[in-house]
Amino acid sequence: MKIYNSLGPNPRALRMLLIEKNLTFPTERIDLLAAENRAGDYAVRNPGAQLPSMVTDGGMMIAETTPIFEYLEDKYPSPPMVGSSAEEKAECRMWMRRVELKITEHVYCAFRYGPGLEMYQQRQAVFPDMFEGLKSQIDVGLEWLDPLLAGKEFLCGTRFTVADIVLFAALDFGQGIQIPAVLSDNVEAWFQRVNSRPSALASIDEEGTAAGFRGV
Amino acid sequence: MKIYNSLGPNPRALRMLLIEKNLTFPTERIDLLAAENRAGDYAVRNPGAQLPSMVTDGGMMIAETTPIFEYLEDKYPSPPMVGSSAEEKAECRMWMRRVELKITEHVYCAFRYGPGLEMYQQRQAVFPDMFEGLKSQIDVGLEWLDPLLAGKEFLCGTRFTVADIVLFAALDFGQGIQIPAVLSDNVEAWFQRVNSRPSALASIDEEGTAAGFRGV
Repeated sequence: MKIYNSLGPNPRALRMLLIEKNLTFPTERIDLLAAENRAGDYAVRNPGAQLPSMVTDGGMMIAETTPIFEYLEDKYPSPPMVGSSAEEKAECRMWMRRVELKITEHVYCAFRYGPGLEMYQQRQAVFPDMFEGLKSQIDVGLEWLDPLLAGKEFLCGTRFTVADIVLFAALDFGQGIQIPAVLSDNVEAWFQRVNSRPSALASIDEEGTAAGFRGV
Repeated sequence: MKIYNSLGPNPRALRMLLIEKNLTFPTERIDLLAAENRAGDYAVRNPGAQLPSMVTDGGMMIAETTPIFEYLEDKYPSPPMVGSSAEEKAECRMWMRRVELKITEHVYCAFRYGPGLEMYQQRQAVFPDMFEGLKSQIDVGLEWLDPLLAGKEFLCGTRFTVADIVLFAALDFGQGIQIPAVLSDNVEAWFQRVNSRPSALASIDEEGTAAGFRGV
């Protein structure tokens, strides 16, 4: 197996998962800032063109962060980071989808249409008119989430899962670009709990930090 | 087990999956137009408040369409609608996430902020300024998808999967509200292939059709 790695919150999320699962694989770095992901062989093999991705022992390229997480869980079920029963998996997938659709995807789109506009407009369709609406949607999503985290250690209660990793990587990235600038009480407390895990610090990419993206 | 059913493309997608898997469960109908999903016991048990959802034999409520699909696949693996190996599952999940993040979620948000605005503004935060941008994002997503469907029967090649169901349910709903009004050649050919399956016709909800939502 082989991992394609780069700058960015989603590759960071994958590094965090690999640390939590105590897995290491050969890694090739793709230069996102130079748009290496959007050209040549990489874009042909991964038409979504994003990072991270991985190649299986059989030569199949798997892209998209959460399917990579699920694949690694299928192959290396211990320690469980999705769940160890159909019910635990369902709980985790439910939270993953909620945080992606209500919060994290809006953070990434807001970045592309706002602070990252200058770079992204050279490489994809961008809609800067959506920037303010996206920020408002993030606020709505976090307001919805805050009371649901009251009294809970993680999104799935006492289980730390890939749902936490997906949300944490986006919010840590978001704080670096002030989207959102401040987290409400329960979300902030949850964030600090995740941030105190060894995998949070160990997954930071020094090159990314140097490029100005906190937590990248 | 028990299914909560209603109007709408996602409940329709679940009905389509159940037909493909030859499964039947007791069903309770929730009145979406009357916002029954956003009040009382249902909203407490499913804080996402959306439909469909299901309750397991153990009493757990699973919400969010794709996690329900995965749970049913875990419990009833045959016929496979996600995949019968980790690699097949990964391929399907990759396509599910791509079509959800690039196309179907934008269709649903565009509906809430456009044709459905009058209803939705009474029950959730709405951002009508995003309507045009969302439609443009749908166009970009479908333009991206079109060449990737050339020469393929379904999103995962010859396998008909939940990824096709997710996309089909959204586009059939979208055609009823003209978002998008027209599908490009490869997408249209794929759409007709899916639409010709017995499960496509049998999953249409007569009550939804009467309410003016095609394919609901």
